Amino acid sequence: MRKEVLTLAFARAVFVEFLSTLIFVFIGLGSALKWPSALPSILQIALAFGLAIGSLVQAFGHISGAHINPAVTIAFLVGNQISFPRALLYVLAQLAGAIAGAGILYGVTPANTRGNLAVNAVSARPCSSASSSALPPPPPPPPEPSVFWVGPILGACLASLLYFYVLVPYCMALSDRLAILRGTYEPEDDWEEQREERKKSMELTPP
Amino acid sequence: MRKEVLTLAFARAVFVEFLSTLIFVFIGLGSALKWPSALPSILQIALAFGLAIGSLVQAFGHISGAHINPAVTIAFLVGNQISFPRALLYVLAQLAGAIAGAGILYGVTPANTRGNLAVNAVSARPCSSASSSALPPPPPPPPEPSVFWVGPILGACLASLLYFYVLVPYCMALSDRLAILRGTYEPEDDWEEQREERKKSMELTPP
Amino acid sequence: MRKEVLTLAFARAVFVEFLSTLIFVFIGLGSALKWPSALPSILQIALAFGLAIGSLVQAFGHISGAHINPAVTIAFLVGNQISFPRALLYVLAQLAGAIAGAGILYGVTPANTRGNLAVNAVSARPCSSASSSALPPPPPPPPEPSVFWVGPILGACLASLLYFYVLVPYCMALSDRLAILRGTYEPEDDWEEQREERKKSMELTPP
Amino acid sequence: MRKEVLTLAFARAVFVEFLSTLIFVFIGLGSALKWPSALPSILQIALAFGLAIGSLVQAFGHISGAHINPAVTIAFLVGNQISFPRALLYVLAQLAGAIAGAGILYGVTPANTRGNLAVNAVSARPCSSASSSALPPPPPPPPEPSVFWVGPILGACLASLLYFYVLVPYCMALSDRLAILRGTYEPEDDWEEQREERKKSMELTPP
Repeated sequence: MRKEVLTLAFARAVFVEFLSTLIFVFIGLGSALKWPSALPSILQIALAFGLAIGSLVQAFGHISGAHINPAVTIAFLVGNQISFPRALLYVLAQLAGAIAGAGILYGVTPANTRGNLAVNAVSARPCSSASSSALPPPPPPPPEPSVFWVGPILGACLASLLYFYVLVPYCMALSDRLAILRGTYEPEDDWEEQREERKKSMELTPP
Repeated sequence: MRKEVLTLAFARAVFVEFLSTLIFVFIGLGSALKWPSALPSILQIALAFGLAIGSLVQAFGHISGAHINPAVTIAFLVGNQISFPRALLYVLAQLAGAIAGAGILYGVTPANTRGNLAVNAVSARPCSSASSSALPPPPPPPPEPSVFWVGPILGACLASLLYFYVLVPYCMALSDRLAILRGTYEPEDDWEEQREERKKSMELTPP
Repeated sequence: MRKEVLTLAFARAVFVEFLSTLIFVFIGLGSALKWPSALPSILQIALAFGLAIGSLVQAFGHISGAHINPAVTIAFLVGNQISFPRALLYVLAQLAGAIAGAGILYGVTPANTRGNLAVNAVSARPCSSASSSALPPPPPPPPEPSVFWVGPILGACLASLLYFYVLVPYCMALSDRLAILRGTYEPEDDWEEQREERKKSMELTPP
Repeated sequence: MRKEVLTLAFARAVFVEFLSTLIFVFIGLGSALKWPSALPSILQIALAFGLAIGSLVQAFGHISGAHINPAVTIAFLVGNQISFPRALLYVLAQLAGAIAGAGILYGVTPANTRGNLAVNAVSARPCSSASSSALPPPPPPPPEPSVFWVGPILGACLASLLYFYVLVPYCMALSDRLAILRGTYEPEDDWEEQREERKKSMELTPP
């Protein structure tokens, strides 16, 4: 557990998760505010979220993996891809980044624009994707915020289990799996091999 | 015929066709419903279909080929790219996946949104792509559902014959072609070779 | 001149130019018709043109280069990239493909949709790109159709000369350049070399 | 300082910065004019800016790096990626290109379209990106034009320092860093190495 956490690369990765989630929330929520000059369309909001996350993964993926979302990090943990300390610090960095991004947005937008949607979006749907904006107005009792926590994390974990254990499984000793979980696994050899193997299996070949 | 069908990879591929068609139909039809807050534009529906299929091919292409559409699978069969048992099970999985996807959508949407378009889309245009929504209101006798079966399959087969036998043909003994059709062809050697060859011929070189 | 023209690959390339221009014109003009259900927005038309040409280049680029446009073919000729017989037959195939695509579109659209824009677009702006639809209504004397011929061809040739002779020049004997023009140049060696060299020079390296 | 500046490749790079900025400003501002037939939506303007810069980087990136923006060039200088003479001439070429692009646009648009937005955009927000159009109408005293200079350059430099010195640092002797700044650094060896190293570190590997 000591090994991975104490590296400089680990600190960089955690910082990058903070920074990328900050930028993502700032752009995403900012694109969904009720701007007076032109109310953004659902297509516009959806493209803002999608292109933002695509650009962030391209820019930061090689440093931290660019999870940006606690559900993704927890799914990677469940899929035995990252260590527990890494997952814990990524999630904390993402939460701090999201709060910071929303806070900066709150500070730089005029009150009439900010007051309607940004606060609402932050309080009632913190983890919802852009497409959920297409839902009809919620019924009188608003959906519990927990919906936005339980749903994405459960779905991501299910997808991770399905992908890493059923669809594209790889054999590994239990001790190695535990070492990954603890962050003491030697990364240079293992990841290199796995990466090669996975790359090969992911080429688009006729089945 | 035994060989290919009995592998674990084959079962995974069939399951992935089921799952990807389910997701595709769920996203595609869901994007075309008459949401009360904002009626989706044709551009929005078209991008939802296009980006959904693009993402699914990227995620699942390396497992099953990500056909997602019976017309594509039948065209691959006609082009001598896959075995008959594979084509049969892919089509069955796709049909089951499409029904499951539409069923889930039916279950999670409110009645006033669902009642108008989802049912209509499911009953009258099961295989139509998003762009067909741009067609004018159909004349009094609505087009036969068979239009959505015969058209895409015929077009896909024609394209497959043109591509695999005229434009990018490759020489192969009849016995080998029959072995592909039966699923008894040794995949490791053959596909490897073909893949290399095809990759080479597909690089964008000046003619 | 005999050599290149008599190959099967040459016939395939010419046919592919015909087919891809047919599809491009069919999709492009079809996206710009005055559909009664929803008038397409300029963004929608622009994306239809752009995504259509992108998909066609991806599918057919390895067979013919996917010029699709006489201005592109003439620019490649001027840039000493293709032979004169190839350029001539490409342009003829493109013109035939464009007429065929517009004809099929004419046949399959209802009269009220087709009558307004398709004929207008075909007669007055045969080579215009989608973005030209954003121009204001033309002044009383409509622009000469020749504008749509002279403009794109002149611009493409200028770009080709700038690119192939100034920005990314390569040394070649005059006799070799003439052989390319006549189509008697040995393609296997030369293109292979040029391709490698050009690939290398086109990698995104810091200057 | 002599070495790099006197090469033909350097002259080409400076010219390409001029040309690409001209095209970018022409397309970007042109997409934001108040066209009478259909006022462009914010999504349309944003996609025009984004796709224009993406295409220009793809076409010209291998010649000059396709900075297109003084803020990007200054950030590369601060990040010790380019020489001072290169940065100086790039910025001059970009300013000249932007003025030329705006001038051509001014010349080819009708007065009623041009008069409203193009001049306004050029005078008040020369460096703003498309998304800034989503801002509410500015308060009575309009923002200083210096905002569009100080903001992007400061932000780009901060990002460059963060990226090149903290997130993806590389060790280099001070004398070498000064040689890069002066343009006397041997480019063939160094860039080749750095490129390989950076390429390797930028592959999307699990952390």
